[in-house]
Amino acid sequence: MKALVYHGPNQKSWEDVPDPQIQKPTDVIVKIETTTICGTDLHILKGDVPAVAEGRILGHEGVGTITEVGSAVSNLAVGDRVILSCVSACGRCDYCKKGMFSHCLGDEGASGIGWIFGHLIDGTQAEYVRVPYAETSVYKMPDGVSPQEGTLLSDILPTGHEIGVQYGGVKAGDVVAVVGVGPVGLAAVVTSQLYGPSRVIAIDVDANRLEQAKTFGATDGVLSTDADWKEQVLALTDGLGVDVAIEAVGIPQTFAMVLDMVRPGGHVANVGVHGKGVDLPLDSLWIQNIRITMGLVNTNTTGTLLKLVAQKKLAVEKFVSHTFNLQDIEEAYDTFSRAAETKALKVMLNA
Amino acid sequence: MKALVYHGPNQKSWEDVPDPQIQKPTDVIVKIETTTICGTDLHILKGDVPAVAEGRILGHEGVGTITEVGSAVSNLAVGDRVILSCVSACGRCDYCKKGMFSHCLGDEGASGIGWIFGHLIDGTQAEYVRVPYAETSVYKMPDGVSPQEGTLLSDILPTGHEIGVQYGGVKAGDVVAVVGVGPVGLAAVVTSQLYGPSRVIAIDVDANRLEQAKTFGATDGVLSTDADWKEQVLALTDGLGVDVAIEAVGIPQTFAMVLDMVRPGGHVANVGVHGKGVDLPLDSLWIQNIRITMGLVNTNTTGTLLKLVAQKKLAVEKFVSHTFNLQDIEEAYDTFSRAAETKALKVMLNA
Repeated sequence: MKALVYHGPNQKSWEDVPDPQIQKPTDVIVKIETTTICGTDLHILKGDVPAVAEGRILGHEGVGTITEVGSAVSNLAVGDRVILSCVSACGRCDYCKKGMFSHCLGDEGASGIGWIFGHLIDGTQAEYVRVPYAETSVYKMPDGVSPQEGTLLSDILPTGHEIGVQYGGVKAGDVVAVVGVGPVGLAAVVTSQLYGPSRVIAIDVDANRLEQAKTFGATDGVLSTDADWKEQVLALTDGLGVDVAIEAVGIPQTFAMVLDMVRPGGHVANVGVHGKGVDLPLDSLWIQNIRITMGLVNTNTTGTLLKLVAQKKLAVEKFVSHTFNLQDIEEAYDTFSRAAETKALKVMLNA
Repeated sequence: MKALVYHGPNQKSWEDVPDPQIQKPTDVIVKIETTTICGTDLHILKGDVPAVAEGRILGHEGVGTITEVGSAVSNLAVGDRVILSCVSACGRCDYCKKGMFSHCLGDEGASGIGWIFGHLIDGTQAEYVRVPYAETSVYKMPDGVSPQEGTLLSDILPTGHEIGVQYGGVKAGDVVAVVGVGPVGLAAVVTSQLYGPSRVIAIDVDANRLEQAKTFGATDGVLSTDADWKEQVLALTDGLGVDVAIEAVGIPQTFAMVLDMVRPGGHVANVGVHGKGVDLPLDSLWIQNIRITMGLVNTNTTGTLLKLVAQKKLAVEKFVSHTFNLQDIEEAYDTFSRAAETKALKVMLNA
């Protein structure tokens, strides 16, 4: 088959590789119908994720059809269309029992499983993919959900929802700020509206993105390059700060911003993937009754979000900015990596 | 009357001052029966809390008897014995309505109220004290509770309980670590046991304190000066780290320790009063699904803890290591400030 293979920092190619095989009785093989590229894939290509070995097929999102099942698989069958979750889960370890699939202790790779596709095992930017622990890791596609919508449920919708909105504890009446309104930030903007916030403030360096965020339901937009950005944000609250500040960038400057805009008693939810440590000014914050959360998506709300997408209660089609054929994935990477210029959100690849 | 007056860094004296007067209809005047010294008072004396003006009477803990009530006070009367909470609350602002009295927006001092005794207004290390918003800030002393026990409910018991145990989300079966087992750390050790943890690990630089912590219910003690302290802690878990790590010191080294020992999906509750910022290694933590909390006590569980103390379900008498007469408070400060040597926990001052 063909697949997008990582060959070390800044090197990748769409090339012939062996077809994946069933390795364990709990595996299935899936023929990819739709996949996409994540910001994390760009981090990997920069060499920021050293756990990714050369020769690895990238990608951790997608929808496809099962072509082969392992001997232990009973609730999935050849021909089933499924959403591949970015997090694989054994379903039986302590973490899985608690719904924290992100830290599954299952046996695939060195340090448990969780996020392994395109990381510790071959991923979804390929014609076929081996799916471990399939029964506890995939979601059957219901009627009325497009493969593009399904692909958004692999990662960005549950990530924005669980790590941004749920960890942030968004509740009715809250003023929510989302710093960085790329795809995952927009997923937080969209899913926060399930909880009845009074305002959702989008904050970004790019004025275009702020306008785009409003089409996803943001009530306000603030340019973070404005010298008075903080005053603008405070003016949208009672003057004391936002209830929930969601960081969806992953750099020290934006983390400092969320700490600076949250009210006493408020919540900071870090969604960004950070390459460096940050300063935590506990000398001023110890008395502020702040809660700070962070984490990899658990995908324990994927089923809930899938139901809402199927019911058209979450309008997500606007996430798809570009569509390519799968064999043109290198061109898709080029478009996605120049998002400021191409206005790319999610670039979908159809096999 | 006599009171302990702060005269700038490292200067204090027990001296004659004017008797406090009712200033607002919601005030009461209380004759102090018992008060104590907090670690925060030592911070103030070092000059670490610049908001404390010279001439301020220190202290934010105590029990006493009401001698005068303002015209708007109807549920308290002259002769009532009351616990003075370290946090004053108007009872009517947005924060008070949410039970977050620590950030009360009431009108006493520049930035709302909350902790004001011995900080923004005169405190409890005196023969008499003016108590603002008395109806919503004091607790009547029930039968069977000693003034020393009541004084522990002014600050350290609710602080350890709310900011350590409740913010840490201690639940049945958890392995809890408390770093720093001074009075507030011990309050977390004691109150964590209300939630059924499987282990409570005390961690300190002082072997004596570890032994003492066991008499408060700690199941294990680890010397933080041991090179293999982390391995010792992990050996008391399933190898992945503690569920809840409570920081009750307030320095960068101990904050780094709690981050280092918490398991993926675990909680870090900062109770320590920090004088400096700390490093937050988000490059490794972003994926760990950690929750970090911090804050000033809300005193919204003081009534609950008072009931449990009255029922002898929280054994707290061991917190009192030394007792002095109120006029000997300077000697008490000396004993308390040399706690490593004198083995002081709470030094009680009886009028």
